Amino acid sequence: MISVGDELVSGATADTNAPWLAERLVSFGIAPVSHHTVADDEQAVASAILSVCERADVVVVTGGLGPTADDLTRQGLARAMGAELVLDDECLARIREFFRRRGRTMAPANRIQAMIPAGAQALPNRLGTAAGVAAAVADARVFLMPGVPHEMREMFNSEVASRLPKSDAVIVRRLIHTYGMGESDIARKLGDLLRQREGDVVVGTTVAAGVVSLRIVARGRDGSSAKRQADHVEAQVRERLGALVVGTDSDTMASVVGRLLRERGQTLATAESCTGGLVGQMITAVSGASSYYLGGVVSYADQAKRELLGVPRELLDEHGAVSERVAAAMADGCRSRFAADWAVGITGIAGPTGATDEKPVGLVWIALSGPAGTQTHRHVLPGTRGHIRRRAAMAALNHVRLALM
Amino acid sequence: MISVGDELVSGATADTNAPWLAERLVSFGIAPVSHHTVADDEQAVASAILSVCERADVVVVTGGLGPTADDLTRQGLARAMGAELVLDDECLARIREFFRRRGRTMAPANRIQAMIPAGAQALPNRLGTAAGVAAAVADARVFLMPGVPHEMREMFNSEVASRLPKSDAVIVRRLIHTYGMGESDIARKLGDLLRQREGDVVVGTTVAAGVVSLRIVARGRDGSSAKRQADHVEAQVRERLGALVVGTDSDTMASVVGRLLRERGQTLATAESCTGGLVGQMITAVSGASSYYLGGVVSYADQAKRELLGVPRELLDEHGAVSERVAAAMADGCRSRFAADWAVGITGIAGPTGATDEKPVGLVWIALSGPAGTQTHRHVLPGTRGHIRRRAAMAALNHVRLALM
Repeated sequence: MISVGDELVSGATADTNAPWLAERLVSFGIAPVSHHTVADDEQAVASAILSVCERADVVVVTGGLGPTADDLTRQGLARAMGAELVLDDECLARIREFFRRRGRTMAPANRIQAMIPAGAQALPNRLGTAAGVAAAVADARVFLMPGVPHEMREMFNSEVASRLPKSDAVIVRRLIHTYGMGESDIARKLGDLLRQREGDVVVGTTVAAGVVSLRIVARGRDGSSAKRQADHVEAQVRERLGALVVGTDSDTMASVVGRLLRERGQTLATAESCTGGLVGQMITAVSGASSYYLGGVVSYADQAKRELLGVPRELLDEHGAVSERVAAAMADGCRSRFAADWAVGITGIAGPTGATDEKPVGLVWIALSGPAGTQTHRHVLPGTRGHIRRRAAMAALNHVRLALM
Repeated sequence: MISVGDELVSGATADTNAPWLAERLVSFGIAPVSHHTVADDEQAVASAILSVCERADVVVVTGGLGPTADDLTRQGLARAMGAELVLDDECLARIREFFRRRGRTMAPANRIQAMIPAGAQALPNRLGTAAGVAAAVADARVFLMPGVPHEMREMFNSEVASRLPKSDAVIVRRLIHTYGMGESDIARKLGDLLRQREGDVVVGTTVAAGVVSLRIVARGRDGSSAKRQADHVEAQVRERLGALVVGTDSDTMASVVGRLLRERGQTLATAESCTGGLVGQMITAVSGASSYYLGGVVSYADQAKRELLGVPRELLDEHGAVSERVAAAMADGCRSRFAADWAVGITGIAGPTGATDEKPVGLVWIALSGPAGTQTHRHVLPGTRGHIRRRAAMAALNHVRLALM
């Protein structure tokens, strides 16, 4: 894989394309051997393509197909092929049509996006103006795709996937997401399962935002034998970790909470202070959330806690906004205002300012109000403002998950 | 730069460390020449280190310093150096202390995190258990750091930065963020400024979530000459783009809106439907937001629109929840409930379901209620559910920004 862009080499932008592509390629039985990031420079792109083509059967290049003078990937491929760039009339017509449908006319600069190295094939872009390219360099198949993630993904799925070489081994990847225990303790519980690095199954761990994910990679002659191996490991992991297991693969904490609510036919509402809407945002990122999520109040100011959630002024004066009693009153008030089965209340100090002697940065009270009463949980979370907010939101959703299980 | 991890090569996780490091290295006058991602494999790590040391003065390696059997970066460095791993007593004591302070005892697995190649130097980790390493391989300085982003950043700043070679050129990087016009139209307005790719100033563009950012990289003998060049280009960009310019460098749409509100001593509240809390989350990601953000209502269900924001039932029945009139009523109701100077109301169809003949997926009505009345804006936004939500949130904040300017 080659990613092209000054903004990637210099660090101004994180490359989200390469990980997505790697995952998709693996699902086609193609194992990524390396990933290179190069600058917007015709010679650098040409050199990278030539050097990678010596070692790989498939080379996937993203970025540098835009209309401006710093977009030089198609020129780099042409140089690597020793070919001229020629205008592809069909591409040009498609770009003109793209602008026409939006009531605009094509800028002259966009013409370059219809230029393709002689001997290569243009790949249509359904979501943007930059055409992709499929070409052969030495014995490798080379694909150029745009750097804009959703355009690249659509082009990979509809144009590139069918042009990949067929593999004779099938790889099944599975992720098992856990929450509530550190990586080394999880490793201790799993012991021999994790050391299993030889043979047809590899198990590893990754940590992100408090979620420890186990990666199972199983290889087999066909899909069902690979799947059987992954299933076997997953069953052992679930037996050892119990309720620590949140879900698998594309499951998120929010989607799992949503599934549990839908199964029970129950509803949820949120009252957020320090997380400022993050929990609502996570819940509503899941399509179909309207069937169980009624809404929420972001009660950032104390006045909002009083007037929109009915938190008594005395509680705020006596215990402070970041307190067990206020979290509980937020959750109870929220549950009754929204007439929800469950409501979660979150109040804390995300920092960097606002701490006192008794209330450090990272102190977060989470209350869950439900059919059987109200429970409260005290957390002291580490990290920056962003970390504390994300960890608080995850902890809140996890309390809902455990209560529903 | 070398990033180590099966989860990075296979695409399970996006690498956020490399971009951050690249940006920091540039600020020290060290230009990243390449970035390699390799698997959790001792030989692969050793080969990558040896091959990169031939071409670079500084090699920064992240990841693979955890306590589990798939963490093999320190072993890879030892192999590249032809050295044994030896126990560093000071590191071991620091790891034991780390657990003790948290009321836990060190697991035996963590002992490996205090092992350092003979002849190398341990770098303390203030936020976790994995010690870093500083070593010399051939003529290059090699640094190993943990893959957990906040641990890596702290270690880079406090341990690695001071050990970097001094550079004789100073590079000043500046980002200018614009919103409201596409990349090719921005390029047309900037013309010659963008083609300026030779000499001491390079200008390029990057697009993310509707924001077109211009990257200015100026190189000079000292900081003030580089800064003068960057200032000169920035002044020209601002003159040509006017209110399209949102801010620079670490400015975000939300931080700029916050600054404008603070300057005017005014307050903001939010009423979100399809964005589900995302706007509140973006605003409160900025430290100090409590001085101008009062809070919000996530009115996901119609009942919440009626009861918490006072949207009349007749409006919902007659025009539907996604309509100009309902957006305006949400904003007006929100402004009065929170007693805020400004309130924004957002209602739309984020998809993939919920569209009708007259109301396509991506239709979003945004209303802004302020001291001089209520304005409404109709948007039809492209992309997936996630894109539509992010673009709607950005558009809403931009309407607030323009009204405040």
